[in-house]
Amino acid sequence: MAEETGALPSRTDFSAWYNEVIRRADIMDVRYPVKGLYVWYPFGFALRNHTYTLLRSLLNRDHEETLFPLLIPETEFMKEAEHIKGFEDEVYWVTHGGLSPLDVKLALRPTSETAIYPMYALWVRSHADLPLKLYQVVNTFRYETKHTRPLIRLREITSFMESHTVHTDWDDANKQVEYELGLATEFYRDLGVPIIISRRPDWDKFPGADFTMAIDAVMPDGRTLQIGTVHHLGDHFSTTYNITYEDVNGEQKLASQTCFGISERCIAAIIAVHGDDKGLVLPATVAPTQVVIIPIIVGKRGDEIMAAVEKLESELKAAGLRVKTDARDMRPGAKYYHWELHGVPLRVELGPRDLDNNQLVCANRLGVKTTIPRENAADSVKRLLDEAHDQILEKAEDHLSSHLKTVKTVDECNQSLEENIVIVHWCGEKACADKLEELTNSSLLGTGVRSKYVVDDEGPCIVCGKPGKTALVGRSY
Amino acid sequence: MAEETGALPSRTDFSAWYNEVIRRADIMDVRYPVKGLYVWYPFGFALRNHTYTLLRSLLNRDHEETLFPLLIPETEFMKEAEHIKGFEDEVYWVTHGGLSPLDVKLALRPTSETAIYPMYALWVRSHADLPLKLYQVVNTFRYETKHTRPLIRLREITSFMESHTVHTDWDDANKQVEYELGLATEFYRDLGVPIIISRRPDWDKFPGADFTMAIDAVMPDGRTLQIGTVHHLGDHFSTTYNITYEDVNGEQKLASQTCFGISERCIAAIIAVHGDDKGLVLPATVAPTQVVIIPIIVGKRGDEIMAAVEKLESELKAAGLRVKTDARDMRPGAKYYHWELHGVPLRVELGPRDLDNNQLVCANRLGVKTTIPRENAADSVKRLLDEAHDQILEKAEDHLSSHLKTVKTVDECNQSLEENIVIVHWCGEKACADKLEELTNSSLLGTGVRSKYVVDDEGPCIVCGKPGKTALVGRSY
Repeated sequence: MAEETGALPSRTDFSAWYNEVIRRADIMDVRYPVKGLYVWYPFGFALRNHTYTLLRSLLNRDHEETLFPLLIPETEFMKEAEHIKGFEDEVYWVTHGGLSPLDVKLALRPTSETAIYPMYALWVRSHADLPLKLYQVVNTFRYETKHTRPLIRLREITSFMESHTVHTDWDDANKQVEYELGLATEFYRDLGVPIIISRRPDWDKFPGADFTMAIDAVMPDGRTLQIGTVHHLGDHFSTTYNITYEDVNGEQKLASQTCFGISERCIAAIIAVHGDDKGLVLPATVAPTQVVIIPIIVGKRGDEIMAAVEKLESELKAAGLRVKTDARDMRPGAKYYHWELHGVPLRVELGPRDLDNNQLVCANRLGVKTTIPRENAADSVKRLLDEAHDQILEKAEDHLSSHLKTVKTVDECNQSLEENIVIVHWCGEKACADKLEELTNSSLLGTGVRSKYVVDDEGPCIVCGKPGKTALVGRSY
Repeated sequence: MAEETGALPSRTDFSAWYNEVIRRADIMDVRYPVKGLYVWYPFGFALRNHTYTLLRSLLNRDHEETLFPLLIPETEFMKEAEHIKGFEDEVYWVTHGGLSPLDVKLALRPTSETAIYPMYALWVRSHADLPLKLYQVVNTFRYETKHTRPLIRLREITSFMESHTVHTDWDDANKQVEYELGLATEFYRDLGVPIIISRRPDWDKFPGADFTMAIDAVMPDGRTLQIGTVHHLGDHFSTTYNITYEDVNGEQKLASQTCFGISERCIAAIIAVHGDDKGLVLPATVAPTQVVIIPIIVGKRGDEIMAAVEKLESELKAAGLRVKTDARDMRPGAKYYHWELHGVPLRVELGPRDLDNNQLVCANRLGVKTTIPRENAADSVKRLLDEAHDQILEKAEDHLSSHLKTVKTVDECNQSLEENIVIVHWCGEKACADKLEELTNSSLLGTGVRSKYVVDDEGPCIVCGKPGKTALVGRSY
């Protein structure tokens, strides 16, 4: 089909812009005939694959990959009371095999604690088996009744990375929580996506966890998107599923656990945080095509130029870069439009003048133009890609820092929330948080805020005036 | 947990051997509390990942990867009559979301034609959109009532590669069938697994296909395992789902389609075809560890040897090899046992004598020992891995060719089937096939047999004596 042209909706109308970019840039097709289920286009799936290859490479330093079944028998699923309460409204149930009703209903995993931990109980025997650090990348399911949105709110989460670790004690598990947060920080830095980490309030923690650390990104309209969580599970699940080990003294001890999840919301963050009025802006770390070469054919030197382009392409590929040449018979402007829409980090033009001058004209996706010598082009291109990455990260950091507002009153808070994440002081009482959330139509995201733009200190509670600590308030997707 | 030692069951009792190898070599844990669902151990999953990386690299020459939803609405699933008939007894149905019954039941995909083709109907408009060649690697589900077995007969097939192509006409689709068969042949050659291709009889073709080409491997006991299928779908599904295109003359035409599937049975084939009394024998193409280095520490030169081992390891890794050093404090024999069980293609020993002589002692998994010079070790190791691959392929070819028997009578057929695949002549009548299958407790696998060991010719039908053609008969897993 012919490519649609014409301007994208403005990014100030984030929903309209996002839906249109998802469609036009070939990320997903939303026309699948079930609400909340979407189809990955090949281009979107290539972006997904590069992103998860990056995530796996970070995890593989310290974890091993595994795979557990999708279907969880009701008998196992129903063992952990808090966990059930958290999920009972949104679990899909398989009740029939063929035409026969099943003896035991099977849940489609909303997350895999109740599939994995009965097996961990078999695997963990001795302190020598610990720590145990496994992860899987799987599809998970939630019966969402809210408004669904590609990559953000789904009934089938197609790409959920869930890590599950087991430790001898609470402190060792807590170190793992910090390790996983560091890993997530590195992952998002590689994607150029600035994050804020905070500890979710108790009423918003993972069902069955001691506490939940959450990773939020800020969207173009100042709303937040939760793009990762690390949970300290303490011994809640190990008690329920009997995950015990023999310690060095021969005594049986309960293990302590963590879990850590990142879904395809990481792709939503890449799209939303970096995108602009021309479409996607992809970090080179995960862009399916990092460099597009556009031959500029004018006059009679077409063959000569195409030969030079082919040589350049194979040189860049040999250097490990993902390169495409766009030799289609159409005007360069239409090609620029296409590759900008798809977020390609660097465009390299090669025409007669460049041939004569032994040079290449490069333009990165933010519009920065550089002329580089033809000699050692691969090294120069890699440098330009690194610089482009720094530029998109800096732009995203600027956006985040300019959308963080510290306020002292509920009125100010309400007003600032229109376009920002808000920093307040809060006494820690649920009643005050409830009141603030109700008056400002927002969520108290967390405390113990970790961000270079936020000072974690003390001050009077924004609601009751009693002594309080720094807390993050936002409107979330 | 301490590693179990002691002999494996004999391979002549294939089921006992297979189950024990799957467990001891850390492929899968069968103790998950639902029949037919298994857990991948990290080692097994690493083998799975390398195998599917290979498969993807072959597919990516000609196809693009994509991903469609798992859940198929009953309304779409029920459109193709033959297809429904083929699957109605074995589809899992999701009937509830949370506590609420769903308006439209959702099938867990047993295969994805009915999920993908409604979208293809939207995507295909013009001859310029064709051919369309996409694939996905997904989990699929069958409510198996037969005896289940890891990697072979499952309720959740965790790793189903399904390719779905669309073409302007039947002939172009038929060329694609041949292309996919070539691709599967290359894949299995890279795994060292000899295959036989044949055309399944009409009553055994894929529900909704014009015809089915099947790929079979032979197990140690002479039974066959179907490890891939390519289906020519003709216009059955394009009629049902209205996949049409405008041809060069502006006329609307029905498209022609193919699909092609390979499941984790490819891993079962690797294990079953190559394994021996010591455990796994893995082809280097997909072995998670291709080379294990065993330092032989005798006398006082431990530090010197370990330094040499580290240098060797980094040299081999730099050459792109997957290498591990086993420096555990245990006797070399126990290490050999461990790595042989896990099928590592090449063991390299490095002790004081090797240090003095600037050499390395290598043993491949089939027991062939070679001493190589330390200089340019990576090149020599790669050569030894190639030779090892040739050796396991040759061994497997010998097994296949010696388990193919041509017979003339039903009695001979019955007797030969105890340990072999059998070649007969068959008139093509279903009645004769039914009779043969009943009398010999076997399946007529197919005609148009492609194998260098089988002559596809004519002769009297083994049942009725009328003119017939070569057909393959076997007992299948």
